[in-house]
Amino acid sequence: MAITAASAHVRAVRRAPRRGRPRDDRLDAVIVEATIAEVGAKGWAGATVEGIAARAGVGRGSIYRRWASKQELFQHAAAAVTRPSEDVDTGSFADDLLTAALRMADTLTQPEIAALLPPLLAEAANDGAIRETLKSFVAQSRRQAIGAVERARQRGEILRSTDAEMLVDMLAGALVYRRLLLGATTDAADIRALVRQVVRSCSARTSTEEDA
Amino acid sequence: MAITAASAHVRAVRRAPRRGRPRDDRLDAVIVEATIAEVGAKGWAGATVEGIAARAGVGRGSIYRRWASKQELFQHAAAAVTRPSEDVDTGSFADDLLTAALRMADTLTQPEIAALLPPLLAEAANDGAIRETLKSFVAQSRRQAIGAVERARQRGEILRSTDAEMLVDMLAGALVYRRLLLGATTDAADIRALVRQVVRSCSARTSTEEDA
Repeated sequence: MAITAASAHVRAVRRAPRRGRPRDDRLDAVIVEATIAEVGAKGWAGATVEGIAARAGVGRGSIYRRWASKQELFQHAAAAVTRPSEDVDTGSFADDLLTAALRMADTLTQPEIAALLPPLLAEAANDGAIRETLKSFVAQSRRQAIGAVERARQRGEILRSTDAEMLVDMLAGALVYRRLLLGATTDAADIRALVRQVVRSCSARTSTEEDA
Repeated sequence: MAITAASAHVRAVRRAPRRGRPRDDRLDAVIVEATIAEVGAKGWAGATVEGIAARAGVGRGSIYRRWASKQELFQHAAAAVTRPSEDVDTGSFADDLLTAALRMADTLTQPEIAALLPPLLAEAANDGAIRETLKSFVAQSRRQAIGAVERARQRGEILRSTDAEMLVDMLAGALVYRRLLLGATTDAADIRALVRQVVRSCSARTSTEEDA
């Protein structure tokens, strides 16, 4: 498993710290990386701040100065591995949604997510704190698609009655279901077809012809 | 956890065995029930035929006479708890799909499924045999919806180009995603709205008006 390797995102964060707090950002990334490794080895419930500190080569104090609890650290780590997105506004609903869907699919195939999401789901069933981590992960992963739907509604490109949350449940749901329940890969052509279908379900301009 | 209790379905099977092999069917149901209890207690990987036999009050031979392996027994149990559906043909795509969606949502809220699906997903990630059990479960759960789409296409009610598998990925995906990732309940009104949205995405008769 590639869990112990840093994700491209985590590496990028480490290489290009934000202005002002370069040292802290680097250490944050090292701790997030250690968190992923610890959870990969022991599960969400089994991971300890002590184990994370040892992997990161820091004291527990360095962790608790940043995050008040293991739970807060988990939520930060879950948000970090979903690669916070720049909200792309192409002016077209189909293109915005495709961009969001490609990013979602990419997130789902990241080795860290592929390894950490199934046990996250399993442990969330019995642990309220882990459920909160799952919620952070999911909220982060759907934000870009929700934004795309809201903009399209404001432009009048889709029906006013469109329920953005439900639309994103369909899109993200299909991707997660294919990946986790069917064990199927989803290539760019599949994702394009899926987005076309989702767009058609709410498009203000519909046609009785077969779509091209 | 309600794992040790028989599901309504399993009880029904036990009460009303098929003609001809009443004793075997009753014993099958007892063993399936014991399998669910064993897996609930020890996980999919940890469950043993010995443990299942002990819970069912039968010898291991009684199990191996019916199923060649633990794997085959798991697949049978997974199919049994998804409540095999009578394929309802109402003559309307929207109604057929709603019937299928309501059944899917009902399956997802069954205590056995709620308890066994998350660990099934987690363990399937690392175990090919458990992955096969997951596939049996998923294939069984989507069969009715796939049939509804195929019939609608034959009646010309939906676009010829409709991809039945993708459409069911959207429908089942939204339900599973809401339940497992968002931890949200889905009531009958939500399911009706979801089905309306899915139907609109492939309907041969579309309208530019807001849907009622």
